[in-house]
Amino acid sequence: MLPVLTDLDHFRSLLSQAPAADLAAQEAAAQRNGQLTKPPGALGRLEELAIWYGGWRGTGRPSIENPQVVVFAGNHGVTGQGVSAFPAEVTAQMVINFEHGGAAINQLAKLAGARMDVLALELDRPTGDFTQGVAMNKADLLVALQAGWACVDPAADLLVVGEMGIGNTTSAAALACALFGGDAADWTGRGTGVDDAGLANKTRVVAEGVALHQSTIKDGIDALGCLGGREIAAMAGAIAAAHLLRIPVILDGFICCSAAACLAQTADGALDHCVAGHQSAESAHPALLAKLGKDPLLSLGLRLGEGSGAALAIQILKGAVACHSGMATFAEAGVSDG
Amino acid sequence: MLPVLTDLDHFRSLLSQAPAADLAAQEAAAQRNGQLTKPPGALGRLEELAIWYGGWRGTGRPSIENPQVVVFAGNHGVTGQGVSAFPAEVTAQMVINFEHGGAAINQLAKLAGARMDVLALELDRPTGDFTQGVAMNKADLLVALQAGWACVDPAADLLVVGEMGIGNTTSAAALACALFGGDAADWTGRGTGVDDAGLANKTRVVAEGVALHQSTIKDGIDALGCLGGREIAAMAGAIAAAHLLRIPVILDGFICCSAAACLAQTADGALDHCVAGHQSAESAHPALLAKLGKDPLLSLGLRLGEGSGAALAIQILKGAVACHSGMATFAEAGVSDG
Repeated sequence: MLPVLTDLDHFRSLLSQAPAADLAAQEAAAQRNGQLTKPPGALGRLEELAIWYGGWRGTGRPSIENPQVVVFAGNHGVTGQGVSAFPAEVTAQMVINFEHGGAAINQLAKLAGARMDVLALELDRPTGDFTQGVAMNKADLLVALQAGWACVDPAADLLVVGEMGIGNTTSAAALACALFGGDAADWTGRGTGVDDAGLANKTRVVAEGVALHQSTIKDGIDALGCLGGREIAAMAGAIAAAHLLRIPVILDGFICCSAAACLAQTADGALDHCVAGHQSAESAHPALLAKLGKDPLLSLGLRLGEGSGAALAIQILKGAVACHSGMATFAEAGVSDG
Repeated sequence: MLPVLTDLDHFRSLLSQAPAADLAAQEAAAQRNGQLTKPPGALGRLEELAIWYGGWRGTGRPSIENPQVVVFAGNHGVTGQGVSAFPAEVTAQMVINFEHGGAAINQLAKLAGARMDVLALELDRPTGDFTQGVAMNKADLLVALQAGWACVDPAADLLVVGEMGIGNTTSAAALACALFGGDAADWTGRGTGVDDAGLANKTRVVAEGVALHQSTIKDGIDALGCLGGREIAAMAGAIAAAHLLRIPVILDGFICCSAAACLAQTADGALDHCVAGHQSAESAHPALLAKLGKDPLLSLGLRLGEGSGAALAIQILKGAVACHSGMATFAEAGVSDG
């Protein structure tokens, strides 16, 4: 069991003490990989993935039995600035859709054999408009981090975190801009589909938010409080909890990666247990993945959020692990190894 | 039931009469796609895939219940020229491995819930060395085409064809070069892993084969006989049979695409029912995909053959169809559509 977070410095301290992969298990997985009935390297990235996964799970011959998908929802005060093509009520409507099994993530989680949880975070109390003040005070941020932190099933062997929150690509762009620098325009995209005027307005909002808070942001946790959203903070909390539990995480799109970036800019190695599930169509996602040093598994033009791209990528990781642990060795099969 | 192939012109004639997708079903699928609870286009290529699949299956709300994977194996006289890093005995050894469930494709077919068939094609009678004469005479080619043609389960709703055949990247390179022109070096790669000297030798073999047969090759069927292999011809037969049965096909790597190319260079629209499962690490695969006009779903550095990349891509198509057919519409879910 993980401890309950007592304050933000407690979270920072736990992050800095998170474990590394089990190198002996990783080496055992690499040894096994070299004996399987295929030319060396012929399974490409599937080989790396299986070895990485085995290292985190502490075994040279892993399996994936209990993937968990959690979708967090939050509302954003910054929607008052007209940053989204959809009205804020859609967040709550989509939560009901998730609960009734009607969204894309429901279908993809089911296909992956994953448990799916939905956590709506105070939808009737949006975060503050970050162009006017902080999005969340320290107490609100801690509650949101703890919500994500506590929802990870210790028995899960793989985690996907997704989100729903009208306005949250604006928050994610502001986080990326504050954490990595550059112009607001470099990080601001069309989200669910704003037009050119909408994009210009959204870029202005991101620039104003970053300008207002930049001087008080010393790490990713500060950035989360100033510019984040409850669902983004909860994703960060869940990704960090998975790290302490040695549960590998598949990152989703731009918003999930903005949450992950807050961890990466707070503690070294905070994303070593994470792989990028996909590159989304949100314009700044490739740049954000590059900042995180993550090479995406899929690139299919998705830009839905909800954890959808990462849930689809569960299948790739399952394929990698199935080959690694299910294939015969050259010796077992009596095949000449070249 | 499909007719038994009586001669090569009968096959050509059936190819030219293959059906198109059901446009009404495709339109119904596109209509449904526009009503699902997501921003327009937010599922990217998954949306196109589901609509395409619905068109071929004749329904606006399709499902994938019975995927079939068939692995064909054949031996190649051209291995006498030292073109492979592995000895020719490995073909038969790997067939036993497939039959015992120990290869990568067994694990990936199982994960995809696919029926898997293995068809070894006269392994003790390799094709002729195509630098000395034709690989197969017309009778042998017809038998190999018919083997693939007959093995497609009419009850399947998705087909993957894979192969095993020491020496077959040499045959595939020669086919691509004969069908699309360019230098032998443009189409010749390292296969299972030949060194620089091996690659130079393999390139010479491809160039000699193409030079010997080019003048007698009028279409893809001629090319198959002169330069192909039994497993490559069987793949072509199976892909064509699937077309007549309106069973969509996911193409695998370089060798599978060389078989598909023989169909594409024989009849217009012969690959309309096919999608490219992945881009492999074999050096000429991107160029071959470009000639076929196919954009791969995955690019994970696989270069194993067996149908492995295509079998992994079954999961992507299943995800697309699951979202398409399982999601709620805006009206059903009571979600505001922007």
